[in-house]
Amino acid sequence: MSGKIFPAAQDAENAFYEALERCDLDGMMAVWAEDEDIVCIHPTGARLTGQDEVRRGWARIFAGGPGARVQTSLQVAISGMMIAVHSVHENFTIEGQPRSDAVPLPVVATNVYLRTAAGWRMIVHHGSPAPGEPEKPSPRGGAPKILH
Amino acid sequence: MSGKIFPAAQDAENAFYEALERCDLDGMMAVWAEDEDIVCIHPTGARLTGQDEVRRGWARIFAGGPGARVQTSLQVAISGMMIAVHSVHENFTIEGQPRSDAVPLPVVATNVYLRTAAGWRMIVHHGSPAPGEPEKPSPRGGAPKILH
Repeated sequence: MSGKIFPAAQDAENAFYEALERCDLDGMMAVWAEDEDIVCIHPTGARLTGQDEVRRGWARIFAGGPGARVQTSLQVAISGMMIAVHSVHENFTIEGQPRSDAVPLPVVATNVYLRTAAGWRMIVHHGSPAPGEPEKPSPRGGAPKILH
Repeated sequence: MSGKIFPAAQDAENAFYEALERCDLDGMMAVWAEDEDIVCIHPTGARLTGQDEVRRGWARIFAGGPGARVQTSLQVAISGMMIAVHSVHENFTIEGQPRSDAVPLPVVATNVYLRTAAGWRMIVHHGSPAPGEPEKPSPRGGAPKILH
């Protein structure tokens, strides 16, 4: 497992989406807490729990190789001393498609991060299709609600 | 808004599912934080944010009246000083159906609670259909991981 240290939850989130775009399995797993209680739910998928299931899930998704770009907008962020929760809107576009066909596939995700001895790591990723998700301006613009 | 105090995140969760079964809109909204940053995602639905959208979403769901029973199993619970995160498996059964037809409709939900001045309240409910969700024994049996 990588020894990467993410000093803030947002750093872990940035690394998560970079790994997702690159189909980088080791980079992806370096974002997750080394904990059997991690939970990953892909859109329309069943809940995966623990390191092994979560890794296998990403390996299946990454098997097709890179090709999708994802743009995220952070709608809501709530941050405590030990736990941070981000509600993120993900817009995927498939590379190689003509622009007119590159309809973004909206996904809404709940990402939960834990402050561990090795910095902030992801413990929950819950994604689901977001039909008719209204495009709203982000009211917070990266300024999370800090509880501590 | 109700003045109910939930001394623990689990108390808020119990009240959430009781209100859901009873289609009790005021009881449901009493569980939520009085905060514009609350987020509610119903299975296959778009993200609803803020008191007004979340209330209208539940009002639409409750308009059909009670009829469903929901049994939950808590798979993972992580609890900090200010934030608690539960990953819950929801099994719905429709009342009035012969038992043989009463196939549970599995939903996996990520529920996030915040410790507010008025006790623990829900800030995020993210539910999605869980196809092929394996029935696993709950390894924690209601014993959350406590971080503080």
